[in-house]
Amino acid sequence: MRAALDLAREVGYVKLSIEGVAVRAGVGKHTVYRRWDSKGQLFLDSLLSLNGPVLDYRDTGDIKADLRRQIYAAVDLLGTPPWGPLYQALLGEAQHDPAVSVSLNERFIRPQTEKTVARLRAAQEQGQVSPDFDLDLVMSILSGPLYFQFLVTREPITHAYVDRVLEALFTGLGPRP
Amino acid sequence: MRAALDLAREVGYVKLSIEGVAVRAGVGKHTVYRRWDSKGQLFLDSLLSLNGPVLDYRDTGDIKADLRRQIYAAVDLLGTPPWGPLYQALLGEAQHDPAVSVSLNERFIRPQTEKTVARLRAAQEQGQVSPDFDLDLVMSILSGPLYFQFLVTREPITHAYVDRVLEALFTGLGPRP
Repeated sequence: MRAALDLAREVGYVKLSIEGVAVRAGVGKHTVYRRWDSKGQLFLDSLLSLNGPVLDYRDTGDIKADLRRQIYAAVDLLGTPPWGPLYQALLGEAQHDPAVSVSLNERFIRPQTEKTVARLRAAQEQGQVSPDFDLDLVMSILSGPLYFQFLVTREPITHAYVDRVLEALFTGLGPRP
Repeated sequence: MRAALDLAREVGYVKLSIEGVAVRAGVGKHTVYRRWDSKGQLFLDSLLSLNGPVLDYRDTGDIKADLRRQIYAAVDLLGTPPWGPLYQALLGEAQHDPAVSVSLNERFIRPQTEKTVARLRAAQEQGQVSPDFDLDLVMSILSGPLYFQFLVTREPITHAYVDRVLEALFTGLGPRP
């Protein structure tokens, strides 16, 4: 995995091949294939194995502050190599490799979603989130605008952008009565 | 372009190559490369050349109904071959080919964003959208949850999902005073 990350830093994720990783690691390519049957699976394991900060929600009693802090941490991580390019390459692979997409969801997206829903449920019980808000959608709604920027417009995700998105999501589109 | 779409239907977008397209079209590969210097650019031109329904907003005076109608049309398009797999392949290419990402934004995302902001601005002036809502973010906020489902969780985007997202976005996270 270290060989893969080192090599990726040199040649980029597009040109990375299982064969190249095997050569760098000094093993046969079948040894690498036995462990990862695709580049996407290798990227996912690499991502999950990096000792990054744990993306857990605090509960200080202030939902906006806790969300802001957690999203800042995720955004800062994306700005720190190799996280951003690795995650982007992984999501690129997931577009044509359904097995990668399934693993990504099982091992990363779903656990994050559960934590997010749990933190928001507590906030809803404390009256900090509208009782009408559909909590099951909160992961799509909170992270969708970030993924849109990360994968589609490719503009940098700044803390200021995070603040504006949070404000807009709390305000909502509908006029207040 | 027809050759590319026909071939892609048979072999899939991953295995599609500029060389393969040239063979199918009965021309030299340099002829194809002169027109498209990458698979991603070919996908983008193919997508924009398909005679699909025009994604324009109506203004019936009811913003929620007009948004719903427009998003249903986009979602239905994604469910009709070759749109969905073609757009997914294009977004996959955009993750490792910055030139594709730039063209996609200039030729597709930005014009859609301008139409969306214009329709929402009219609604805000009519009092149907909160005066506090940050209109510049509306494209990220409206389409982010759809892209998240399309590119990350890969769950089907149903009309019911669109309805729930619109409700949640109009409600907003914040409690009503």
